Amino acid sequence: MKQLKWLALTVLGLVVFVPRVKAQSTVDAVMKARGLTDKDKLAAVKTFMPRGGRDEYFGIVGTGNSGTMIVYGVPSMRIYKYVGVFSPEPWQGYGYDDESQLLLKKSSLDDRIPWYGDMRFPAYSETNGDYDGKYAFFTDGANARVALLGLDDFETKQVLSNPIMNNLFPEATVTPNTEYVIQTGQYPHPWDMRSTDMGQAKNAITFWKVKRMEKEGEHKGRIIKEKSFAIEFPPYQLDYNDVGKGPSDGLFFGLAFKDGKAYVYAVDYKKAVSAKKTRVNDFDVVKFDDIKGSVAFIELPAKANMVKVSPEGKYLVVAADNVLVLDAAKIKSNLGKSIKADAVMHKSVPIGKGVVDVTFDYRKNIAYASAHDDSKIVRFNYETGAKKDEVKLDFKPSYITVPQGNSMHPHSNYLIAVDKEAYLKNLPKTGPVRPSVQHLIDISDDNEMTDIYTMTLPQANVYGNELILRTTIKPIIRYPTGTNSRTGEPSPFRAVAGQEKIERKGNRVHVFGTLIRSHITPEIVEVNQGDIVTFHLTNLERAEDETHGFTIDTYGKHGSFEPGKTASLTFVADRAGAFPYYCTEFCSALHLEMEGILMVKPKGYKGPGTDLGAGKLSKEELAKYKKQYEEKLKVIKQTGDVINSVVDYLKKNHYEKYPYVKALVQDAVDQLNKAKFTEDNYKKYAKEGKWKDAFLWAEQYFQYQVKAADVGLRAKKLLDEKLGKEQ
Amino acid sequence: MKQLKWLALTVLGLVVFVPRVKAQSTVDAVMKARGLTDKDKLAAVKTFMPRGGRDEYFGIVGTGNSGTMIVYGVPSMRIYKYVGVFSPEPWQGYGYDDESQLLLKKSSLDDRIPWYGDMRFPAYSETNGDYDGKYAFFTDGANARVALLGLDDFETKQVLSNPIMNNLFPEATVTPNTEYVIQTGQYPHPWDMRSTDMGQAKNAITFWKVKRMEKEGEHKGRIIKEKSFAIEFPPYQLDYNDVGKGPSDGLFFGLAFKDGKAYVYAVDYKKAVSAKKTRVNDFDVVKFDDIKGSVAFIELPAKANMVKVSPEGKYLVVAADNVLVLDAAKIKSNLGKSIKADAVMHKSVPIGKGVVDVTFDYRKNIAYASAHDDSKIVRFNYETGAKKDEVKLDFKPSYITVPQGNSMHPHSNYLIAVDKEAYLKNLPKTGPVRPSVQHLIDISDDNEMTDIYTMTLPQANVYGNELILRTTIKPIIRYPTGTNSRTGEPSPFRAVAGQEKIERKGNRVHVFGTLIRSHITPEIVEVNQGDIVTFHLTNLERAEDETHGFTIDTYGKHGSFEPGKTASLTFVADRAGAFPYYCTEFCSALHLEMEGILMVKPKGYKGPGTDLGAGKLSKEELAKYKKQYEEKLKVIKQTGDVINSVVDYLKKNHYEKYPYVKALVQDAVDQLNKAKFTEDNYKKYAKEGKWKDAFLWAEQYFQYQVKAADVGLRAKKLLDEKLGKEQ
Repeated sequence: MKQLKWLALTVLGLVVFVPRVKAQSTVDAVMKARGLTDKDKLAAVKTFMPRGGRDEYFGIVGTGNSGTMIVYGVPSMRIYKYVGVFSPEPWQGYGYDDESQLLLKKSSLDDRIPWYGDMRFPAYSETNGDYDGKYAFFTDGANARVALLGLDDFETKQVLSNPIMNNLFPEATVTPNTEYVIQTGQYPHPWDMRSTDMGQAKNAITFWKVKRMEKEGEHKGRIIKEKSFAIEFPPYQLDYNDVGKGPSDGLFFGLAFKDGKAYVYAVDYKKAVSAKKTRVNDFDVVKFDDIKGSVAFIELPAKANMVKVSPEGKYLVVAADNVLVLDAAKIKSNLGKSIKADAVMHKSVPIGKGVVDVTFDYRKNIAYASAHDDSKIVRFNYETGAKKDEVKLDFKPSYITVPQGNSMHPHSNYLIAVDKEAYLKNLPKTGPVRPSVQHLIDISDDNEMTDIYTMTLPQANVYGNELILRTTIKPIIRYPTGTNSRTGEPSPFRAVAGQEKIERKGNRVHVFGTLIRSHITPEIVEVNQGDIVTFHLTNLERAEDETHGFTIDTYGKHGSFEPGKTASLTFVADRAGAFPYYCTEFCSALHLEMEGILMVKPKGYKGPGTDLGAGKLSKEELAKYKKQYEEKLKVIKQTGDVINSVVDYLKKNHYEKYPYVKALVQDAVDQLNKAKFTEDNYKKYAKEGKWKDAFLWAEQYFQYQVKAADVGLRAKKLLDEKLGKEQ
Repeated sequence: MKQLKWLALTVLGLVVFVPRVKAQSTVDAVMKARGLTDKDKLAAVKTFMPRGGRDEYFGIVGTGNSGTMIVYGVPSMRIYKYVGVFSPEPWQGYGYDDESQLLLKKSSLDDRIPWYGDMRFPAYSETNGDYDGKYAFFTDGANARVALLGLDDFETKQVLSNPIMNNLFPEATVTPNTEYVIQTGQYPHPWDMRSTDMGQAKNAITFWKVKRMEKEGEHKGRIIKEKSFAIEFPPYQLDYNDVGKGPSDGLFFGLAFKDGKAYVYAVDYKKAVSAKKTRVNDFDVVKFDDIKGSVAFIELPAKANMVKVSPEGKYLVVAADNVLVLDAAKIKSNLGKSIKADAVMHKSVPIGKGVVDVTFDYRKNIAYASAHDDSKIVRFNYETGAKKDEVKLDFKPSYITVPQGNSMHPHSNYLIAVDKEAYLKNLPKTGPVRPSVQHLIDISDDNEMTDIYTMTLPQANVYGNELILRTTIKPIIRYPTGTNSRTGEPSPFRAVAGQEKIERKGNRVHVFGTLIRSHITPEIVEVNQGDIVTFHLTNLERAEDETHGFTIDTYGKHGSFEPGKTASLTFVADRAGAFPYYCTEFCSALHLEMEGILMVKPKGYKGPGTDLGAGKLSKEELAKYKKQYEEKLKVIKQTGDVINSVVDYLKKNHYEKYPYVKALVQDAVDQLNKAKFTEDNYKKYAKEGKWKDAFLWAEQYFQYQVKAADVGLRAKKLLDEKLGKEQ
């Protein structure tokens, strides 16, 4: 039963009646109220993610013109993460902290970092032709860059500029063991990065050498520019491409266009690896004349939209009016020649009008093709050329993907289809520009495919996804304490509890601080207007998801500090005044108390050091701070007693026999010893009657006590477990 | 039946078996395979959005530390749009085009734009205390700014810096007719934006005056800084706040903290409007001494987490251990005093441990409270103090929202609860930092609430949403041609078809160009290295969702051009070479052909003008261009014939009698007349034997023809409709 409640809503003086759907009760009642069909119900249970449920696949997709990566789940189609890649992303401080700025600087042609990226077709790293869940790669088409992301923490680790081309086709392609990440230029241009003489225009295929280095939880593989090279290519416009595997291993294939004609080209890139190189823009290049004997041009009968290598590596499947199945072995035997497609044709399969894309699944010799203008997806056998079945859609499908569809072992019963014209039927209006839409299609039945979900991606023009079995990726949940997350190495700027410090040389100030619930240490930083200041902060937490953020009011800086991470924020303190800084992540009930203050003394300031106004304190205020100080002393005494009792307990139970417990105790004792100076300070200020300073330093000492007590109690708990005692 | 297919997947040399869920067939089979309960099935049909379905509500939420706004739908919980507010967002060119940079510059304290924003609790504009769907407002806590967004196009229209405070509590609050948007500082500090003397620290409440100006599809309302003011506040730490309505209209309420005590304060802000002002930082300020007779301080018995005014305006509902229901009328009669909560207490309702938030729904006197530490949400009557029912959750709820819950007419049977600790149970791992989670809770039943959906938001620490009936917002789908979308006014830089031009004065180059499927005009722009270049582009499309994007390779610039929009991209052409520019939105099948080239001639270049290499063309190439030119001439002739036949037809049928048809015909004729110079050019170059230039200009002329023909055919179609003829 459709239950409506009516409400008189007064908007701009008009009484408008708006129904309120009452959706409780039974499945049938809800379906009736919401207008759902039985087909919808089936789709609903196929995609609904129950609490605690885990998606089967992780999808990654570039946000098109936002320069960031989206991570989402299949079949729930929920978006899990935004990751800065070619553009800044303040939520993780990407492009804001020194470490990520340095990373991006390496992608600068001339000391200007392009803060924009046009990214579409990504690639996952592969081992033996299968996705191995270690890295992802993206190409920035607009600014000619390549990015390597580590899937240990889903972060960008490297961005490099292409030294030959000033534009690229926005696709990254990897070889079967990720020896190379391959990019092609899109529009030819003179290579000298200077000339406007289009008579000198050329294209290039760039092979970025990947040095793999990974162990459990550490993906330190990187692109080695010095071992990378490019192959000169005549001035064709280039776009989609793929790489051989199995019998076609060693070949690189792509689409090329010139003078209204379309070609598939094939390059024996292993020949290029050992071919003679010349230096162009300080980069190794194989001249086309030196490799052309290993390049084939296959003229196609029609404009082509896609080329992909079949999973077992025997065929090239090309969308060009018909789907053309080309024989890779025959292509190989025609290297060095220009031929017509007929000479290497295995099958020509009529699919429908406007075929945009093809993909594969786990069924032997089965492929899928999207016939855009016919609003359908067709399943067919590329070995026999036989059509199996098709699904008619109420939208025009363009790019299609099956999880692991570009590997030697496509997986899954899902197919994702991009819908570039969703605005007409599928979406509420959110202004002149609309989100992107991907449809989830259930392909599990051998004879019938079903469109089951409409996913929205909140930027326009997002497409080119890749999906991987979720369980293939083994993400870490914390870094070793003091890690530069961009390099994976220990940061030289890390600090440990009790060793926080402020160093000054002339007008250069380095703050070595720590973050732990619920304190930023130091809590007061005093500098002079015009100083160049760096906050080097380390998150000391080991608890899962215990991220802290850091920002300084009006200074426009933001860092994200996941457990164990060290990052640095450098700025010129050119604005005088008192600027609160605080943790920007909800980290505990005391989150709002995780704050401090940056004192920027105005130029020409001659007064005393910052004393939080102590010099101007009234008698009443001084008395108040004295009282607070005395109360804090009591708490310090009590906390000290707790610590001592824990220490006694640990000693009595021979904690030193248990190495991990022993290490924790040592850690706790260390922390407190290092806090000694704060104890000295509060005693000193109390002696001088500076009660505010005395109170603040006592508060600081107490914070170290809390940290020490926390570690001590963890040690006690662990010891109890070892001793088999109840908690 | 759970159908599994097993696949041998070789990863790093190990054979791993991974099940593939086969999810086709019946609802029962799917439920069994996916482990769903009957409760899950009910939740699935409540949230599944069928093709073409429209959500009941639009939610908006700040992305926390990303400085952008997310728009999403309820109950589908799909994310529809990311909108740049305080941080740059390249997908719409926000922070990249001149118009949005100018907008952001107005939020700069000293010519530096903070490119970061900490944004949480937004507000929708209101009329008579109800959400009217015209504007949304956000506060940037970290950089002390306010933003106004127009919901006509879901874009940021205004960002201003707070002249008094250097930090704000990240909440925006609006008065019942959006007379003011109100912000409070969070941490007190000296106001002079210079001193570090914390003895001078103060807080402030800022009332930004909103001038409302809207008609169908145009929301031109803006904040008027000159009519805004702040109220000085003693150095309390301030956070959550709300504004009175109905009987409490004219009062502003908030939480204040000092020396370990918590207060609700109330200010008669209408008194402040007419109170004496002094100028601070060139801004009107009411001194606390001049208003304190209109301020009440109500000391609370415990730490407070939230204060909200009940929908009818009679009560303040405060989360402070118990939920305290305070009587607004009694508070009003205590203005000028400091009192204990007991003096104004209507009810004190024990809810559970750690009450974080309260909200309201359409039921009379009903409120909801989240008891964080007890993992439950309680429904209760705030008039009688009686508890109704509660839902036990498997997470700890913090902030809770009901659609239109802050208005005088809360709506909906949904409640959204923020879950800050979702990482433990609900989500797959995506590295050390996790997404944010909101749960959708069905509150439609009067006696039982049900948690039905777990939504992920792909940045950490996202909370503070507001929801509105979707149908209250009336978004536009295009701008009047040539609109500066940030001001809503006609852009002085707009261009129309056929009047594109390149203007140069010294080293300053202005390109006035147009975008229409599938051409960027002009297609060649030639400048000298070091020139300051601006591309002013207008999207001439009128079709829905026919957005074009624009970028220039390696120049890191990006603009988004929705139908009718004019925007400008300024840069220094300091990198010599030939740089393709192109449309970054998939706009039609010919999208990839929507491109052009920027020629930046190196410094000291003395050669001829750019001729795309014509000077170096071989005989064969020249012959090829000659042939292409001659073929293009034939096409031009054919297209001209079509245009002439349409013109004849229109004339014969007296098109001039129909004003709109007449206007279209005039438009078509105009376009072609303005293209005359391209015709002259191709003829000239043909005469000189410069076949490449001749071909390119002929191609350009042809593009104008196509546009003219398109307009002409639309005119014909319209005329046929008027004449009642079949198409």
